[in-house]
Amino acid sequence: MSLNLTILGCHSATPRVNAFPTSQYLEINNRHFLIDCGEGTQRQMRKYKVGFSKINHIFISHLHGDHFYGLVGLLSTYGILNREKDIHVFGPVGIKKATLLMLKISQSHAKFNIIFHELSSSESELIFEDDKVIVRTIPLHHRVYTNGYLFTEKEKPRKLNMLNISGYQEIGKADFLNIKAGKDVILSNGEVVRNAELTIDPKKPLSYAFCSDTSYKPDIVPIIKNADLLYHEATFLADRTDLAKKTKHSTSFEAAQIAKDANVGELIVGHYSGRYKDISLFQKEAAKIFKNVSLSEPGKVFSID
Amino acid sequence: MSLNLTILGCHSATPRVNAFPTSQYLEINNRHFLIDCGEGTQRQMRKYKVGFSKINHIFISHLHGDHFYGLVGLLSTYGILNREKDIHVFGPVGIKKATLLMLKISQSHAKFNIIFHELSSSESELIFEDDKVIVRTIPLHHRVYTNGYLFTEKEKPRKLNMLNISGYQEIGKADFLNIKAGKDVILSNGEVVRNAELTIDPKKPLSYAFCSDTSYKPDIVPIIKNADLLYHEATFLADRTDLAKKTKHSTSFEAAQIAKDANVGELIVGHYSGRYKDISLFQKEAAKIFKNVSLSEPGKVFSID
Repeated sequence: MSLNLTILGCHSATPRVNAFPTSQYLEINNRHFLIDCGEGTQRQMRKYKVGFSKINHIFISHLHGDHFYGLVGLLSTYGILNREKDIHVFGPVGIKKATLLMLKISQSHAKFNIIFHELSSSESELIFEDDKVIVRTIPLHHRVYTNGYLFTEKEKPRKLNMLNISGYQEIGKADFLNIKAGKDVILSNGEVVRNAELTIDPKKPLSYAFCSDTSYKPDIVPIIKNADLLYHEATFLADRTDLAKKTKHSTSFEAAQIAKDANVGELIVGHYSGRYKDISLFQKEAAKIFKNVSLSEPGKVFSID
Repeated sequence: MSLNLTILGCHSATPRVNAFPTSQYLEINNRHFLIDCGEGTQRQMRKYKVGFSKINHIFISHLHGDHFYGLVGLLSTYGILNREKDIHVFGPVGIKKATLLMLKISQSHAKFNIIFHELSSSESELIFEDDKVIVRTIPLHHRVYTNGYLFTEKEKPRKLNMLNISGYQEIGKADFLNIKAGKDVILSNGEVVRNAELTIDPKKPLSYAFCSDTSYKPDIVPIIKNADLLYHEATFLADRTDLAKKTKHSTSFEAAQIAKDANVGELIVGHYSGRYKDISLFQKEAAKIFKNVSLSEPGKVFSID
């Protein structure tokens, strides 16, 4: 069980030489996800050595260009690379029509299927589940329909307490699957050995919450409660709370308030406005109310074991 | 009169860390044009200090992603920058619908008009003319409908030969406009002074031909004859002429053949396939039959006075 998050881009929309729009690569419990896909994401993937073929699921928060204008280029490249595996794209209603039209006029003939999962609910919903990971939406509040995403590892089976098990000659390998599943064991003399004696708690499932773009929205706190890692946009500092409100973005202070109220393990801020030359101010402002805060930077990797 | 061409990107489609898809910035006779707009073009414009607001005309050769997936991002950025001036976009039929749909779902509300000039002719046609420059299409042959573009300075008025003029006391400033327009002067004694005596030839109008992407197509030679500068794609070397034919691209040898037959002043090759690690081979191959050949590289500027 592990979680590795690679920041591919973390700046707001205005293009600058050393600014890259939002995109992240998440490895969680051996699943590989791309989150948002601003223009130039495929180049950032090459730069930071993200394996193109590993990714089967792409999650787009909203349809502003700095979060999705790189999608069609990436899909087109998958065609050039002769991809054959299905790819799943999650995002707001409208993403399918626009993406398919762009691919069609480019005559990008692909051998793979693109399966779109268009979102429109204003409630948090389960949108992906397999045997390793589940993904829920985090409804956000921005100028257009927007979702964050909560990625959570599936609960693991209980772990065998081999020291205690070895005290019972009668208990053998044939029992292990049942014991991991939480069952008690009944010995031949009728004695019941409680599961709690035979197992130890598995590691807590890890979770990552991605929240961009959004105004300060405290009602997401119950959804992301106790997440191990939270990325929350901080386009502005508190000195421009007025502008954050107007443009439906957050300040670094507000991101920290969400992190504190949700009791997350670590906060990452990003989506910095181009008006700020000294990015470290975002860290300093958030740290006043939430200690464990980091800055997102292209190429930076956040790992939790 | 001058011509400055800045290469913004010059590689073929497959993304690599140090590869940038086709885009060029052309200054010709005080007009400022963007030619093709692959993904990431706006970032390259920032890097090489191309003034966003100077550009009023964008010419797209064809709708493959590596030549136009950066267009919608650039137009969206013009909205963020509060552009108010019209912008003209020339390109194949289909470009308008796809671009407007992408901008619409992103809710990119712009104050400026985008005026699309959709092309579909297979003959060379005049598509732009003002008092400084004219632009003609160069019909190319690729897997999709494609045009190159020929940019030519307008003929300049004749220049005054002040040494000769000073020999005629009677000829003054009031006559200069007529003389520049090529008229003779009739003196008070009835003597006719021929214009050829009073003027010298103006500088030859400069021209730039952009040809990408295309298979070897000798029938473009009359259109680009005697151009001062020719960019011609060279995706492959002659060792892969088979692949060039199959994918409807050119070899460096073929680009040079076109340059030679058209008697251009200088050839620039580009659009190199990722399979070649040593780009200098493109220069060497072309130079065997056409001496004045250069390699395109991001940031390189070609100037003619």
